Amino acid sequence: MKTLIKGATILTMRNDEPFAGDILIDEDRIAEIGPAIAAEADRVIRGEGMAAMPGLINAHQHTPMSLLRGFSDDLKLMDWLDKKMLPAESRMTPEDIYWGAKLAMAEMIKSGTTAFADMYIHMNEIAIAVEEVGMRASLTRGLVFLENDGGRRMSEALDLVRRWSGQADGRITTMLGPHSPYTVPPQPFSELIALAERENIPIHTHLAETKEEATKIREKYDQTPTEYLYHLGLFEKAHVLLAHGVHLNRRDLGYLRGMRGGVSHNPVSNLKLGCGIAPVAEMAVQGITVGIGTDGAGSAATLDMFEEVRSAAWLQKLDYGDPTKLPAADALQMATAGSAKLLNIGHETGTLEIGKKADIILIDLRKPHLQPVHNLHSLLAYSANGSDVDTTIVNGKVLMQGRQLLTIDEEELLKQVSWRSKRIVDGI
Amino acid sequence: MKTLIKGATILTMRNDEPFAGDILIDEDRIAEIGPAIAAEADRVIRGEGMAAMPGLINAHQHTPMSLLRGFSDDLKLMDWLDKKMLPAESRMTPEDIYWGAKLAMAEMIKSGTTAFADMYIHMNEIAIAVEEVGMRASLTRGLVFLENDGGRRMSEALDLVRRWSGQADGRITTMLGPHSPYTVPPQPFSELIALAERENIPIHTHLAETKEEATKIREKYDQTPTEYLYHLGLFEKAHVLLAHGVHLNRRDLGYLRGMRGGVSHNPVSNLKLGCGIAPVAEMAVQGITVGIGTDGAGSAATLDMFEEVRSAAWLQKLDYGDPTKLPAADALQMATAGSAKLLNIGHETGTLEIGKKADIILIDLRKPHLQPVHNLHSLLAYSANGSDVDTTIVNGKVLMQGRQLLTIDEEELLKQVSWRSKRIVDGI
Repeated sequence: MKTLIKGATILTMRNDEPFAGDILIDEDRIAEIGPAIAAEADRVIRGEGMAAMPGLINAHQHTPMSLLRGFSDDLKLMDWLDKKMLPAESRMTPEDIYWGAKLAMAEMIKSGTTAFADMYIHMNEIAIAVEEVGMRASLTRGLVFLENDGGRRMSEALDLVRRWSGQADGRITTMLGPHSPYTVPPQPFSELIALAERENIPIHTHLAETKEEATKIREKYDQTPTEYLYHLGLFEKAHVLLAHGVHLNRRDLGYLRGMRGGVSHNPVSNLKLGCGIAPVAEMAVQGITVGIGTDGAGSAATLDMFEEVRSAAWLQKLDYGDPTKLPAADALQMATAGSAKLLNIGHETGTLEIGKKADIILIDLRKPHLQPVHNLHSLLAYSANGSDVDTTIVNGKVLMQGRQLLTIDEEELLKQVSWRSKRIVDGI
Repeated sequence: MKTLIKGATILTMRNDEPFAGDILIDEDRIAEIGPAIAAEADRVIRGEGMAAMPGLINAHQHTPMSLLRGFSDDLKLMDWLDKKMLPAESRMTPEDIYWGAKLAMAEMIKSGTTAFADMYIHMNEIAIAVEEVGMRASLTRGLVFLENDGGRRMSEALDLVRRWSGQADGRITTMLGPHSPYTVPPQPFSELIALAERENIPIHTHLAETKEEATKIREKYDQTPTEYLYHLGLFEKAHVLLAHGVHLNRRDLGYLRGMRGGVSHNPVSNLKLGCGIAPVAEMAVQGITVGIGTDGAGSAATLDMFEEVRSAAWLQKLDYGDPTKLPAADALQMATAGSAKLLNIGHETGTLEIGKKADIILIDLRKPHLQPVHNLHSLLAYSANGSDVDTTIVNGKVLMQGRQLLTIDEEELLKQVSWRSKRIVDGI
């Protein structure tokens, strides 16, 4: 099966300027990119008036929390967690998780996201949804070690890795998920790192999201959260996806230099929860890979990666009082190639290149808010939003065209979401 | 002509909870709001699955700068102004201004904005566009007094006021526009204030946008920008629309208390230009009216007021490290009733009330990123974007329905914008 995208303005995200051209997809891979491809194709997608770029990659997510969107905004973090999120989450059945993940995937596909990293519970249901829907995902069973659960969480985590790694035509990969420095004590964390090293499994964890976390770890270990992980050998022994990285000092950044993986910046969540500004411009200078994620819709309220891209750029400009910090192209690069590296799929995705997987989105520019086109990077980073995405392709398969989802029954989805979400929060 | 909106979820923005109901419009005004209106109507608009709320009001804009969207992002403020904006603006013809304003209005209508305050040049062309398009606008000829222009600018400003106040079925109002403390010396500023007081004309000006401005005014007058305006008697003698108000100290806020009008917060522009965080939560505590604007698309890159609403909320949460600051409902209130007061049209717009002008928008919630609906304020403030607006009504007239503009030929507009914008920036 050959698909030809004709006459789009192409942004490969390989540090080149946009150009008018075609993209030929052969099965799941990009076969050709150029100004005018003559090849025969089974299917032609008209790209006139559209920008073609690599699909956006959401490097940190908790998909089923989409069922709790808007349920507990504008609250103190501990009220949000203890009075709202935890009681609601405890009511979620595996079927709820499946539909919540599907809701998140519908939103992601409709806003141009082609791959995501997810950490949650009931990951088997999420994997089934990923397989059906056609997205690319790095799945992680979150692990907290605060009470003795007889090894249940750990066995679910291993089950996920053994059962789903490489499945769904290779679209699913997995990681181990020690939740954070403040929920995983040194011994289990060390054991997880040893396992990750031995079996070459990447690790996805939260790091230094809040001041309170830094205070806790200081009191307990007289270390920063980053020092805590460093001294456990994490950055040396495994590929690591670190979510947040807000409260990092100069020395912390030094510990992260040279790590495999990198930091998922989640600017909207950090803003909305009042956590602070992650030093991502400085990370980039120091050669630490930065990707971009949304965090769960229970906190961020949206999975629109365009909004995250501009929020990332805005926050660096605000932090330095300097509008030249984190320019549009760099922020877009974080949300594509940067996130791809974090998910450990940078060799397959994140840029448009011959031989890479065909994870491509088309953005319709023929709209008042996206005209005129002086600078495509600027336009995509600062003016576009998820609703401007016309077509989303993952692994060579069209998941949305003309804003119609092709692998999800949207009507059925919204019906399921409506009654399930009401039941989950009833009385909380 | 009677129009009935049936079965929407109604948010009046009068501190009440959303409810399911109907809205009856008689000519240009709201005649009835309630759970089930039995009245006959000439036209029925189906509101099922939609939220109905007052149109958003953009309290600070430079509409024709939409022609320069994305032309000069990520630059130092002075490079942005001197090397890009000023040379480009000097090439704009009156016809360019007309089409640039129309581009901005197309974007505004499509993103749920029904009224705006505009400060620019060639205001006659903008007024003509407003009259044709059907929006509500407060128009101001910007006045700088840095060189002797033989009174040209001033006479254009007066011409605008005399010719256009109350025109277009009362949709157009006007203000006087001394540009800012650093571009208008004390004598002409005083004369403008005297004129404003004598003829009861409101004043629209910029205040304390950047640190550089504060430094300049300190060096020149040994005052803060706010003290400079206060000692000229501005806040006592006129209704004032102050744009930005980023660099205000505790005493400055005291000077603003009790003023007629208030401050237009422009969070996206402030973020993108690295200006800082305006103390709007503190202003609200002190009873200073806060509205929300976008600033020109040459800096903000978007006129989407939903994005401004959430950015306003985010910035206060970030500034205080407290997610409870500026909750969703308060931020939405700023962008509706707050902005209306700044434009001096709060008695006619800004809330849905019987007898007020019918400036109403419908937002289509039947989308994955707007489901489930746990809390409508949250959903609109944090998850919706301009593209979710289905219907925009101003003065009882439908300007957009089903996302189709009814008073602007979009195809012709985009054609005009394309060649004109290329000509304007060519070689700059």
